[in-house]
Order: sequence, then structure tokens, then C-alpha cells
Amino acid sequence: MESQLSLFYGLSFLTVVIAFAFALYLYLWVKKQKTTNARIQEISTLIKEGANTFLRREYKVLAKFAAVAAIVIFVLLPSPIWQGHMIDNLSMAIAYIAGTVLSAIAGKIGIMVATLSNGRTAEGAQKGLKTAFLIGFRGGAVMGLLVVGCSLLGVAAVLMATGNSSILLGFSFGASSLALFAKAGGGIFTKTADVSADLTGKVELGIPEDDPRNPAVIADNVGDNVGDVAGMGADLFDSNVAAMASALVIAQSLSGTGFSNISMVFCYAILGLLASVIGIAASGIGKKDNPTKALNSSTYVTTGIFLVLTALATLVFEGFSWRIWGASAVGLLVGVIIGITTDYFTDDSKPIVRKVAHASGSGPAFTVLSGVAYGFISSLPAMVGIAISALVAYQLCAPMGDGYAIFGISMAAVGMLSIVGMIISNDAYGPIVDNARGLAEMGGLGEETIRISDELDSAGNTVKAVTKGFSIGAAGLTVISLLGAFMSEANEALAAAGRELITGFDIMSPTVFFGTLIGAAIPAVFSAMLILGVDKNAQRMVAEIHRQFNEIPGLREGKKGAKPEYGKCIDIATSGALRELIPAGLMSIIATLIVGFIGGPSAIGGFLLGNILSGLLLALFMSNAGGLWDNSKKYVEAGNEGGKGSEAHKAAVIGDTVGDPFKDTAGPSINTQITVVSLVSSLASSLFVWLSIFH
Amino acid sequence: MESQLSLFYGLSFLTVVIAFAFALYLYLWVKKQKTTNARIQEISTLIKEGANTFLRREYKVLAKFAAVAAIVIFVLLPSPIWQGHMIDNLSMAIAYIAGTVLSAIAGKIGIMVATLSNGRTAEGAQKGLKTAFLIGFRGGAVMGLLVVGCSLLGVAAVLMATGNSSILLGFSFGASSLALFAKAGGGIFTKTADVSADLTGKVELGIPEDDPRNPAVIADNVGDNVGDVAGMGADLFDSNVAAMASALVIAQSLSGTGFSNISMVFCYAILGLLASVIGIAASGIGKKDNPTKALNSSTYVTTGIFLVLTALATLVFEGFSWRIWGASAVGLLVGVIIGITTDYFTDDSKPIVRKVAHASGSGPAFTVLSGVAYGFISSLPAMVGIAISALVAYQLCAPMGDGYAIFGISMAAVGMLSIVGMIISNDAYGPIVDNARGLAEMGGLGEETIRISDELDSAGNTVKAVTKGFSIGAAGLTVISLLGAFMSEANEALAAAGRELITGFDIMSPTVFFGTLIGAAIPAVFSAMLILGVDKNAQRMVAEIHRQFNEIPGLREGKKGAKPEYGKCIDIATSGALRELIPAGLMSIIATLIVGFIGGPSAIGGFLLGNILSGLLLALFMSNAGGLWDNSKKYVEAGNEGGKGSEAHKAAVIGDTVGDPFKDTAGPSINTQITVVSLVSSLASSLFVWLSIFH
Repeated sequence: MESQLSLFYGLSFLTVVIAFAFALYLYLWVKKQKTTNARIQEISTLIKEGANTFLRREYKVLAKFAAVAAIVIFVLLPSPIWQGHMIDNLSMAIAYIAGTVLSAIAGKIGIMVATLSNGRTAEGAQKGLKTAFLIGFRGGAVMGLLVVGCSLLGVAAVLMATGNSSILLGFSFGASSLALFAKAGGGIFTKTADVSADLTGKVELGIPEDDPRNPAVIADNVGDNVGDVAGMGADLFDSNVAAMASALVIAQSLSGTGFSNISMVFCYAILGLLASVIGIAASGIGKKDNPTKALNSSTYVTTGIFLVLTALATLVFEGFSWRIWGASAVGLLVGVIIGITTDYFTDDSKPIVRKVAHASGSGPAFTVLSGVAYGFISSLPAMVGIAISALVAYQLCAPMGDGYAIFGISMAAVGMLSIVGMIISNDAYGPIVDNARGLAEMGGLGEETIRISDELDSAGNTVKAVTKGFSIGAAGLTVISLLGAFMSEANEALAAAGRELITGFDIMSPTVFFGTLIGAAIPAVFSAMLILGVDKNAQRMVAEIHRQFNEIPGLREGKKGAKPEYGKCIDIATSGALRELIPAGLMSIIATLIVGFIGGPSAIGGFLLGNILSGLLLALFMSNAGGLWDNSKKYVEAGNEGGKGSEAHKAAVIGDTVGDPFKDTAGPSINTQITVVSLVSSLASSLFVWLSIFH
Repeated sequence: MESQLSLFYGLSFLTVVIAFAFALYLYLWVKKQKTTNARIQEISTLIKEGANTFLRREYKVLAKFAAVAAIVIFVLLPSPIWQGHMIDNLSMAIAYIAGTVLSAIAGKIGIMVATLSNGRTAEGAQKGLKTAFLIGFRGGAVMGLLVVGCSLLGVAAVLMATGNSSILLGFSFGASSLALFAKAGGGIFTKTADVSADLTGKVELGIPEDDPRNPAVIADNVGDNVGDVAGMGADLFDSNVAAMASALVIAQSLSGTGFSNISMVFCYAILGLLASVIGIAASGIGKKDNPTKALNSSTYVTTGIFLVLTALATLVFEGFSWRIWGASAVGLLVGVIIGITTDYFTDDSKPIVRKVAHASGSGPAFTVLSGVAYGFISSLPAMVGIAISALVAYQLCAPMGDGYAIFGISMAAVGMLSIVGMIISNDAYGPIVDNARGLAEMGGLGEETIRISDELDSAGNTVKAVTKGFSIGAAGLTVISLLGAFMSEANEALAAAGRELITGFDIMSPTVFFGTLIGAAIPAVFSAMLILGVDKNAQRMVAEIHRQFNEIPGLREGKKGAKPEYGKCIDIATSGALRELIPAGLMSIIATLIVGFIGGPSAIGGFLLGNILSGLLLALFMSNAGGLWDNSKKYVEAGNEGGKGSEAHKAAVIGDTVGDPFKDTAGPSINTQITVVSLVSSLASSLFVWLSIFH
């Protein structure tokens, strides 16, 4: 079977080459699109520079963090260096650094393509919807293909070089620790700018969203890039790597099956990437289509292709199992269902958004209360969906033997994340067209062009619901398999220490229970720290905007020649984000270590469960409530419940402002927080075995 | 040892008699206080009638529910009647009804005493702080003594009559199912009235809180009684019974120890009640004291007395253990610590409240965001505290033998709840003096009297933090022991079915994991349903108030003779609350049954854990955020951050309105929801064993 594995290593690299080549083709195609409007070029350059400045400063901070972490890893992990496995420690440290570097590259490339595409999409909109859609979508696709290509490349290279899946966890930790901070930092940046721009512009002055008079408007557009593009790229890179890494750790721990399970993990990843390539190539927008439909149908096409290809692979290859295929199919199906239910709660053609918009008529307190309530309710279908898919995947694969049940769950996650290339393309499309909309307005491209870019933008918002369904579902399943990976790591350490192995984590055990309570509190504290970061930072930026309006003559009235100092706002967002991004992430990591050193591996098992449960709940609640408020506001702005300027509108804007850090800072960062905590647990398992107070 | 148990039965009844006699003495003392002001008598009567009308209508609805539930219990529980243990089923049904009836009586008596005390406290305030404080406190104490007396009486009587602790769970379920609906119904009533009165009075018209022009003002005062007095009484009756019942179930399942553990449970309950009697008798307010100090020191005195008395009992009685005493002491200590940290987050002399007040200056979105964030963070110390107390209690008692560890945890909960007589006295004091403040204003008793009643009211709000610490901590520990009780019930059923016994609930088992995810979502959905209930209902009431202001000539201006139709508002609150109170509770019960029928006892184990974790998290978050917003508003109203009428004030009022259903409807109902779900699980365990799809 080893030859089969070699075949899949080869195929992995080949697929990566295909994906990269296709990405290059798309990149050149986007670059070839004409850009002539000087004003757009100017602003586009400002955005690009702002984003790159932020990224450079962020990566400097993160490089220091990564260097310290790499040294700690080298000294202590997987086992303390004085125990004599220095090569393992060195490999782990190198894998960790590789993970951070690839993650940083993914973010950087995303910014590059997005800032290349935004202006071209805006100008493309002058030619019509079809052209503009293609530019936005293909720009996003470059990002999607590169992120997935990088993760497959990295995972295959690390495993081929070391043959040790535990080292992969180091690689994965590199990816996710960087993602955690990138997501948090980008999220704080983008929402600082967004909230401040909205409060001063829309609420106080009554000027439109992207009015160039507003000093925060460029920072807002920069934020879309550093938060949604770079942050999201790092996030999905991390999820994808974590899903593969945990599946491979479990596959390697399965007894007596040789290499076919490992091959299968790679095969699914390869086929997912190929399906994405085909889906992207086939994508386009027909004459009668709307962009939402075009985006969603690409996702469904890719899903279908993936299912067919993996079914074929199961037929062809020795040792591949239909049960595993079934588990991954169930995972995909549930992902789609979660997407549809999310859509129900956040789409303004559905009743919930309208109810919240209606409640806004009675004042902002009712906007907030009804949004919180529906946000809470919206968590139920997704939690039930994840619960059912885990149960079904488990039951399907349990008959295959010991450990296969968890492997089935991990393969469901791998299956869902295999089509992540397509998901990222759709996700990155969002901020590109959002930027394009701003550029069309600031560049004065006329009403028709703004209308087209508005339509593209709105599709970006809607399609987020479906892609979020996939990513939250996948995160849920991934962390279950990470729990499995943790158990197998902890058992290796226990075996080495000559202690009794863990067979599970019993809720009734005091250390497990102890862990669950603290684990459940962490995502709440983590979210709070990020929200407070945005809160504090936005207060600073609002003060700066007020200063500019008061001190720059003619700015408030929009006189010609009165130019706001965009740079100052970008600077405030940047330095605030950099100050706030480390503490929340570090808090989660330190809490994990404290629990582990108090209660040992069993407390960590509980801790991870508590973390998963409250993390999923809060992530779903915050993402959906935020989306709900955003779309309620848009619904009111479209002329309902009194329209713009009404009391309902003011209330809806307040709801949207509350929702901003919910949905774009705290909510999506929680997924990464869960992953990081799970990986820290696996990596430090031998330390917990060795040093903990209780066992 | 059976003689020892008989002794404690006897002592239980004796103590109950002492407590009742003391309560009667206090009741007569309160009644003796003079009431002369005709306006106060009139309004006080309106409040009393409103509260009684609501209660009568609520109990009618609940009687129907209880009748159906009793029939279901008779047919199905503890095992289907056709399996031939009809006497058990009959006992269970009777115990259930006894639980509901005692719970209803507790609520009814509370209303009676509170509506007797409120006017007298207001008039007492004319004589000075000392008199008014004593009337308010002793009124609350009547309630406290009766509730605890009833629970000890009920538990002792049921166990003595049946000798079967499982039947106690039926009694406990009766208490908690009524508490669930009473809490939800009362919570919806009170917040409907409060929110509507605030929005129309304070925000729209700028008239004071208890201005008699406002048609919702009587409903608001009725709400304090039906929500805070009746609901809270039912809630703590339920917690106390649940803690004792689960401890007794576990004590009875412990092998080979005879009756001394059962005796110990009763002994702790007896000594707690005696300590409360002494604490209440000793309570009073010195010349230099403030009421907050007086209330808190009574709690600490009672705690100290309880610890000394139980230590003496441990010395004296055969079979009593110092380890168990230690566990209960740790529980108490952690309760105090939770109270102090809660106080830190909600007291306006501490930084957090001031930060939120300051953030309000930037607009309501920042009020909401910072309140949510600090509310999230505030959950951490309590969760850690509960985690540590559970771990310590477990470790202390584990060496005593199999099953003792969980027994230790349950005794920590019993210990904490034993002083609940004192806690309820302090809690019921709150709505009494709140009402008194309103009556002083409406009765025109003059500024000095209003100032005194304001001081009493503010003490009621502050002291809530400490009492909440106890009740949340105790709920956390109680549900752990209920998990233990569930396991022992499930094992009885499994043994009867000849199946393998459960030794624990392993997170890695697919059914357990399945349960945890769904269990975690339920408190969120439950809270959402209650919040939406308030939301919808308040919108109706606001519309009615607007109608009255528009249609009743002179009302808005406050002309003499222009009388609002208070009754209409009470009616809206009542019928709305009755419509909304059943669905949320029923949803939780049905979800439990569905999970049990799908995944059997192991899924239920996970379900309960998920429910506890997210329930505690959300309860702490919502209670504390609500308290925080409330006190931020008061802090601004005291002249800070611009004072009344400023933008910060408007924002703070919006925060307070959001917080109202958080802290007084959803937050405190979650505790009861968790208890109900745990009891349903225990009661239905044999059905789950028998009928579930997966095992």
C-alpha cells in the first residue's frame, strides 16, 4: 500500500501545480482588464497602500510572536528537548514556522489580488454586470486556489518529509496561531473603521456610505481587505490544514490498515481542489441570471462534482470505503442545510429580517432585543445539524473497527473543506465587489454603474450565508476530530510515561467536569476582549473624525479642495488593532495551559468540549445576529418601515453597529480560537501528562 | 441508624413549626404597623388586586398543565403502569401534585406579605430609615421562612411516607415545573410593564419613574410582585427542593452506609433553617449602618452560624463526616466569592459600571457592546468558582468510597441552599422597597421620604448581586448532583432491563456528543422565546399607552381628574404573559424527550451537560449585563456623564431596556429550565432505556 501513498503524494503535487497554473491564468486575465479612471486609480492605490502598511506592521508583530513560539516549541514540544528527541523538536519548530509563513503568504496574496481587482471591477461595471461579475469572481478565485493549493502542498510536504503526523499538528498550529491573530487584528481594524465611518457619516451627517468627505472611508475600504480577505484567507487556510492534519493523525493511529486511509485523506483533498478548479472554470453569469444565483450554483456544481469524483475514487482504489464516502456526503449535505437555514435568518426576503426591521419602529432597544433573540434561535438548526452529521458519520464508520468512527467524522470535515477553494472564491468576491461599490461612488462613475456594483455587493452579502454554513459546519466537525487527535496524542504520552491510557472523557469525572466549565467560559471572554478592542478603538477614531471635521475648513460642507486626512484614520485603526490582537489569543492559549497543568489530559478533554459547545453557540449567535441586523438596516434603507431618516432607520443603524463586531470580529474569530486551543492541547499533551496536579 | 433518621424526621418537623411560628410573629408585626395615607392605601390595593388577578389566572392555566402532567406521570412514570407498579406511579403523581401545590402556595403567600408590606414601608419611611428598613426586611423574611419551611416539610413528608427517594424527584419536578412557568410568566409580565413604562414615561415624556400619569405604572408595580416575589419564591423553593432531592437520591444509592447520609442531608437543611431564623431575628440596622451593609451582614452572620452548627453536628452525630462538612464549606465560600465578583461587575462604585456609562456618551451601540462584553467576561469568575468548588468537593469526598464524590458535590449545594431562608428574605426585600418607593412618590409623601425609600431601594438592587451569587452557584452544583441522580436512576432502569450499566458519560461517545450539542442550544432558544415574549407584549402595551395619552383628555399634561386606565395595562401584561409562558418551558421538556428517545440515557447525559454549560454561561451573562446596564443608567441619572436628559442618558436608558428582559425574564429563568430538564431526564429514564433508537 505504500506505493499507493506515493502515488497520492505525486498526484497532490501535480494538482497543486494545476491549481497554481490556473490561478496564474486568472490573475493575468484580471490584470489585463483595463483601468482608465484616474480618481479610481488614486483611491485604489490608497487602499492598497493602507492594506499593505497594516499587513507589514501586523506581520512584524506576529513574526516576533512566532519566533518566540518556535523557540518554545523547539525546547518543549512534542517532548522536552532534554529527553533526547531533538530531531522531532527541530522538525516541529520548522513545521510550525512553515505553517505561519504559508498562512502569511496566503493573506498577502489575497490582498494583492483583491486590491488589483476592486478598481477593475468598478470600471468593469460600466460595461455591464457580466464583465464586472467575472472580474470580481475571478479575483476571488485566485485567492481560493492559492489558499487551498498552499495547504495541500504544505501538508503533503511535511508528512512526506517526516512521515510523522504529529509534526503536522505543529504545521497546523503555525497556520492557526497566525490565523487567530490575523483574524482578530483584521477584524478589529475593519470594524473600527466601519463603525466609525457609519456613526459619523450616516448617523451624524447623513452622508452616504462611501462619501469621500468622510476621513474614515479609505480606512473602511482597507478594512474590507485586511479583515475579510487576508483574515478570512488565513482562517480558511487554517481550517483546511487542521481538518487534514487531524484526519491524518487519526488515520496514522488506526491499527493494521496500512496506508490506504492516509491515501484517502489526500485523495479527497485532491479531488476537492480539482472540483473547485472545474467549478471556477465553469462559472459565469447567464443573461437572465442574477449574481447570487451564479455564485450559489457554482458552489452546488462543485459539490456535485466532488461527490461524483470521490465516489469514483472509492470504486477504483483498493482500501477505500463507501462508509467513509457516506460520512463525507452527510457532512456536505448538512453543510448545505446549515447554509440554507442561516440564509433564512439573514436574508431580507425572509420574515425574520423583516420582523427585526419592524421592531426597530419601537426603538433601538427592540432592534437589539429581537436581534439577540433570533440570533439565539438561529443557533439551533446548525447545532442540530452538526450533532446529526457527527452521529451519522460515527454510526456509519464505527463498524469498520476501533477508531474508525472518529476517523469518519474527521473525513466528513475533510470532505466539506475539500471544496473550500470554491468557498473562498465566493467569500473573497464579497470584499472585492464591496470595495468596487465604494470606488464607483468615489470615482463618480454614475448611477447605473453604482446600481450594478450595488447588485454585485448585495449578492456577496447573501452568498456569505451559504459559505458560512460550510465553514461553521466544517469547524464543528474538525474540532471533534481534533478531540480525537488530542486523545491519540495524549495516549502516546501516557504510554511513554507508563501510565494508564485514556479511553474517553467521562463527564462525571471531576477533572473533566472542571475543564468543561472553564472551557465554556473562554469563548465568551475571548469575544468580549475583541468587542472591547473595537469599542475602544472606534471611540478613538470617532474623536479623530470629529477633530478633522472641526479643524479642516470646508470638509464638512464638501467644498472642493478640502481633503480629509485619510492616513490618520488608517493609522488609528492599525495601531489599535495591533495593540488589541495579541491579548485575546494569548488568553485562550494560557487558559488552556493552566487547565492542563491543573487537571491533566482529562481536564483538557472537558475543556475542549466546553470550548467547542459554547464557541459554536456564540459564533453562530454572533454571526447570524450581526448579519440579521445588517440586512434589516438595508431593508429599512430600501424604503420599508419609514425608510432612510426614519426612527426605525436610526434604530436599525444602531442594531447594525452592534452587529458589526459581532459578525466580523468576534464571531468568525471564535472558530480559529477553538482550533488553536485544540492544537495547543495536542501539542502540549506530553507536558500535561508529565506536570499536572490532578490526573 | 434508622433511629437516627427518625430523630431527624422529628427534628425537621419541629424546625418547620419553629420557622412557621416565627414567620407568623413577623407577619403580625408587619400588619400591626400603621397605614393612614388614603392615596397609598388605594394604590396599594390596586397593586394587590392586580397581582392577585394575575396569579389567579396564571394558576388556572398551570392547574390544567399540572393535571395533564399528573396523568402522564401516573400512566408512565417511574415505569409504565402496565408493568404493574401502580402504587409507585400513584405516589409519584401525588408527590408531583404536592410539589406544584406547595410551590403555588409559596408564591401566593409571598404576594400577600409583599403587598401588605409595601405601603407600610412607604409610610414607615416617614418615621425614618430604621423603621422602614425593618418593615421591608421582615416582610421579606416571612416569605423566606415559609418557602424554606415548606420545602423541608414537603421533602421530609414525602420521603417518610414512601421511603423511596425516586418519588422525591416527582415532588421536585412538581415544584420546578410550576416554578418554570411562574418564573417565565412573572418575568414576562414584569418586564412588559417595566419596559413599556420606561419607554413611554422616561424616554418619550421625560416624566419620573413612578409618575401616576403613566397608565403602565401600576402594572409595573404589580410586576415587581408577580415577577420578583412570586416567581423568585417559586424558583428558590424549587432549587432548594431539587438540591435536597438529588442529595437524597444519591445518599440512598450509596452502598452499605445505612441511614446516616440521609440523616445528614436533613440535618444540614434543619441547621440552615435555624441559622436563618437566628440571622433574621438578629438583623436590624444600627444608627450608622446603611441598609446594604445591614442586609449583607445578616447573610454573613447566617453563613457563620450555619458553618458552626454543622461543625458541631459533625462532632456529635455518628456517621457524619468532616469531609462532607468541608465540601459544603467550600461551596459556601465559593458562593460568597461569586457574589463579590458579581458585585464588582454591577456596582456603580466600581469601574465597570462607570466604563459602560462613559461608553454611553458615544451612543447606544457602545452601551450595548460594552455591556455585552463585560457581561461575557463576568461569567468567567463564577464558572471558575463553580468548577473549583466541584473539583474540591469531589476530591475531598472521593476517598470515602464509590459514589461519595458526587454526594459531596450535592452536599455542597445543599449547604449553600440551606441558608436560602436568609437569601429569600433579602431578595423579597427588594421588590417590597421598590414598590414602597413608587408608593411614596405616588402618595406624595415628600422628598425626604422618597429619598429614604430610594436609599432602601438601591440597597435592594446591590444586595441582589450577593444573593444571586449564592443562587447561581447553588444551581450549578445542584445540577451536577442531578446529573448524578440521573445516572443512578438510569442505572436502576438499565438493571431492570437486564442491560449493561452506565459508569459515566464519555464525550467521545457519539450519542453523548450528540446530546451535548443540542443541550447547549436549548437555553439559548429558551431565552430567546422569553425575550421575544416580552418584546411582543411590550409593543402591544406601548401602543395602548399611546392610545390613552391621545384619547384621555388632560392625561398627558397631568390635569387633575384625568385618570389613566391602569387596568387595561395590567390586562395586556397578564394575557400576554399567559400566552407566552407555556411554549418556552414546553419546548425544553420536549427537546429533552426527543434527545432521550433518539440517543437513550447516554445522549441525555450529554444533553444535561451541554444544557448546564450553556445555561450557566447565558444566565450569568444575561443577569450581570442586565444589572450592569441598570446601574449604569442610575449612575448617569445621578448626574454623571452629562446626567439626566443627556445623550449618554438616552443611550443608558436603551441599555437598561435591553437589560430588563435579560436580567429579570430570561436570565433567572434559565436556572429553573436546567433543573426541570434534569428532573424530566431522571423521571423518564426508564422510558429512554426502553424506547430509544440508539443506545
